Amino acid sequence: MPAPLTVDLNCDMGESFGAWHMGHDAAILPFVTSANIACGFHAGDPAVMKRTVRAALRHGVAIGAHPGLPDLVGFGRRNLDISAEEAFDMTVYQLGALAAVVKAEGGQLHHLKPHGALYNMAATNAALAEAIAEAVYKVQPELMLYGLAGSELTRAGEKLGLATAHEVFADRTYQADGTLTPRRQPDALIANAEAAIAQVLRMVQEGKVRAQQGHEVAIRADTICIHGDGAHALEFARRVAAALRQAGVTLQAGHSAATA
Amino acid sequence: MPAPLTVDLNCDMGESFGAWHMGHDAAILPFVTSANIACGFHAGDPAVMKRTVRAALRHGVAIGAHPGLPDLVGFGRRNLDISAEEAFDMTVYQLGALAAVVKAEGGQLHHLKPHGALYNMAATNAALAEAIAEAVYKVQPELMLYGLAGSELTRAGEKLGLATAHEVFADRTYQADGTLTPRRQPDALIANAEAAIAQVLRMVQEGKVRAQQGHEVAIRADTICIHGDGAHALEFARRVAAALRQAGVTLQAGHSAATA
Amino acid sequence: MPAPLTVDLNCDMGESFGAWHMGHDAAILPFVTSANIACGFHAGDPAVMKRTVRAALRHGVAIGAHPGLPDLVGFGRRNLDISAEEAFDMTVYQLGALAAVVKAEGGQLHHLKPHGALYNMAATNAALAEAIAEAVYKVQPELMLYGLAGSELTRAGEKLGLATAHEVFADRTYQADGTLTPRRQPDALIANAEAAIAQVLRMVQEGKVRAQQGHEVAIRADTICIHGDGAHALEFARRVAAALRQAGVTLQAGHSAATA
Amino acid sequence: MPAPLTVDLNCDMGESFGAWHMGHDAAILPFVTSANIACGFHAGDPAVMKRTVRAALRHGVAIGAHPGLPDLVGFGRRNLDISAEEAFDMTVYQLGALAAVVKAEGGQLHHLKPHGALYNMAATNAALAEAIAEAVYKVQPELMLYGLAGSELTRAGEKLGLATAHEVFADRTYQADGTLTPRRQPDALIANAEAAIAQVLRMVQEGKVRAQQGHEVAIRADTICIHGDGAHALEFARRVAAALRQAGVTLQAGHSAATA
Repeated sequence: MPAPLTVDLNCDMGESFGAWHMGHDAAILPFVTSANIACGFHAGDPAVMKRTVRAALRHGVAIGAHPGLPDLVGFGRRNLDISAEEAFDMTVYQLGALAAVVKAEGGQLHHLKPHGALYNMAATNAALAEAIAEAVYKVQPELMLYGLAGSELTRAGEKLGLATAHEVFADRTYQADGTLTPRRQPDALIANAEAAIAQVLRMVQEGKVRAQQGHEVAIRADTICIHGDGAHALEFARRVAAALRQAGVTLQAGHSAATA
Repeated sequence: MPAPLTVDLNCDMGESFGAWHMGHDAAILPFVTSANIACGFHAGDPAVMKRTVRAALRHGVAIGAHPGLPDLVGFGRRNLDISAEEAFDMTVYQLGALAAVVKAEGGQLHHLKPHGALYNMAATNAALAEAIAEAVYKVQPELMLYGLAGSELTRAGEKLGLATAHEVFADRTYQADGTLTPRRQPDALIANAEAAIAQVLRMVQEGKVRAQQGHEVAIRADTICIHGDGAHALEFARRVAAALRQAGVTLQAGHSAATA
Repeated sequence: MPAPLTVDLNCDMGESFGAWHMGHDAAILPFVTSANIACGFHAGDPAVMKRTVRAALRHGVAIGAHPGLPDLVGFGRRNLDISAEEAFDMTVYQLGALAAVVKAEGGQLHHLKPHGALYNMAATNAALAEAIAEAVYKVQPELMLYGLAGSELTRAGEKLGLATAHEVFADRTYQADGTLTPRRQPDALIANAEAAIAQVLRMVQEGKVRAQQGHEVAIRADTICIHGDGAHALEFARRVAAALRQAGVTLQAGHSAATA
Repeated sequence: MPAPLTVDLNCDMGESFGAWHMGHDAAILPFVTSANIACGFHAGDPAVMKRTVRAALRHGVAIGAHPGLPDLVGFGRRNLDISAEEAFDMTVYQLGALAAVVKAEGGQLHHLKPHGALYNMAATNAALAEAIAEAVYKVQPELMLYGLAGSELTRAGEKLGLATAHEVFADRTYQADGTLTPRRQPDALIANAEAAIAQVLRMVQEGKVRAQQGHEVAIRADTICIHGDGAHALEFARRVAAALRQAGVTLQAGHSAATA
């Protein structure tokens, strides 16, 4: 008898800053199994981090550090030409900051997922990916590393022996090489909720996704990115979670060494 | 036979930022026994922090977090009307960030000493002092807390059972109530090196300091603040260290639970 | 025949930052006659500033610079112990930045009103008030200076010959000395919209306000602060504007030398 | 009789920040004819800007805005993937801020030269170059625009009718297409002072430079970049200035419409 399928639903959180509010963290928490919490460089400040960690602990959701580029005004979404060493340093710093917040609240950090442009650059730039993985390895090797499925980042984590979670997207289309269709292309997004849910189910149950070019592509879906902002985010999260449960899939964060 | 006298010589370090250099960290490290390393809010950035931690480890100097107010342009020296909760949050954040850098470099954090205006406010504001002490207590209770001798900050640390180090100043004059003469007063500084060294020796050996008003004041001198910048800093550090050693005083950082 | 009464309705705007949205600028613009636009230190970024200036120009609303303390995470609301020279410097900088944005959009700056803690400190601290007034005087002496009615800031502006606008609050109670009841006091706010509107009308028409202590206090009401955020802000702005118009009061920004 | 040759010697200045010092502005000012003053995004703060403007005015040196990317920790040297609109907005903002500082000090702005990565990106990216030129055009069209000789930036300025200054480098080698040899290449720098001075003289007197590939390349040298930091900067500046004067070249900033 095969082991039951499990998958993690993760959501970026704690992306408010000072007096500015962003996201629907409280509302989305019941539908996800892990939370990536901003660490102050692209969003989040020490107070927001604490509030978000508390909320995640209250919901029993696995907590991850979500380090970003030092670009508050750009929300960490603009590529910045950093060196691998700078990527290492900023990951160590932000990881430590969030880990302390989690510890002060009586919890335990579970994973790390880079944010925005740092995530995207680390998906294809092996040197940056290795630097980020090494930062995790040197600070808390028991943490799980989340990265784009099949990317340089998950590869770098695996090379160091880190537990990794390959991340897939419900509402993004894929290319024949397994990468995401760039956002600037008109067919980058799946607007139709049914289609998005169908894609998720297939990725989780069969390990496959149909690329825009028509091919079937193998993909490993350990964790699904759930958006926490936007008008339909909450409803979509609810539906994805329900569809997966109905299909007999267990929703839970991956077993990192930290939680094992 | 009485136990031999020991005292710690501490110096603020890692206060460069990006392309800007400050201090003579490498030169001063041989003369001190503990280093307070800036954590990014008033000075320091992840790269500077790593370099400074490495240098401190190379010299076997005890490493402390040196959190400051989020005021880069003011170097954390301007009072900011923060709440106790904000003091707690920013201490947790910066402590965690530096702890991760230290861990990544294979070391261990030893203490925490607030910087500049945060240090000064915590010396007299009990609520801020308690918030900072609680941050240490909740994140790494084995750390030693450095604060102005006889201040609200050391009191707050002791109330929580933290190991504390009462800090004295070689080149500052004292008031009858044991506080430092405010810098804006003309007699705040001891310019004469002999006099400064004599004051230090007396504080360490006899636990006393002569106040500007002429009284003898009891003072506890666990650690002496050594300045790392300015023309004569290095020479003065060398002379203080030499005078103490000649007087039979052992120079070493306090035994926190972390190093016990 | 007496000149018809006129008063200005001003609102803080452009307080979004990067990806974070704040306020209901577009909705409130039809009800006000002047807009104070954040300049990047406490809120606002160059893109937000441009969008807000464009919207204000479209509505024919007088544009003011709204400089704040360099405290993004605290939204410029926390007192910071700055020198008068620092207040001068940060006012010059922010005023110039917004003036350039306005010029690039084909408009003309009309006034300056400090934000948050800078406004409050300048209301009672003569040195800071004079520094801010001097900054306006040296950069664009034709600008009008908005400050708390009867405060050190309006006094400083008048001393330099600047046109000033004395600002009153519809929803705040007043003390016998003409100052606002501090927010931490339970009776600081007027929750009842009728009462707030009645207070405004009386300040504008009779130049009087009833203090919490029961006295009648003389007050000069050149401009009324309208809040742009909060659930009822918009409806309240609409009602204040309507009540004033019904009472025969002309709503318009003051004639600064810039618009004369 | 041909008009006497003139050339401008420009130097980046005001790149201190808060408590951090950088450069030898006071020492280099006697040897240059124009100063590019940092505007707060990559370096400089309102106080530093004022001090630097004052020093430049005292020396009768033409003052330029030196806007950079919002990357303090990276000193504006790291490419950031900004849109043309973002380039426009940040140029308007920083230009206005410095213009106000200059006005408050009784001076007049003369030119604008982007800093670091913004300068480099604008040299080859036409959209960014046009955005920067348009920012100058819309805020102060009488300003001169400094850019790499023969680059997209000078081209964009000329297209809008701005006065432009083509900038050349004494200590950098050139490629056959007139671009600078990238710094990462071993032969990017001319370490020999004699050779550097000879290159400068030839660029100014003959409008030619010998490329690394051996070709003669035509180059327009309106302004020469003088470095203000580094051990030999000062001595080199003195020698370049002396060599040019000896060759009969007049050292002066270009006549922008602002100074005409």
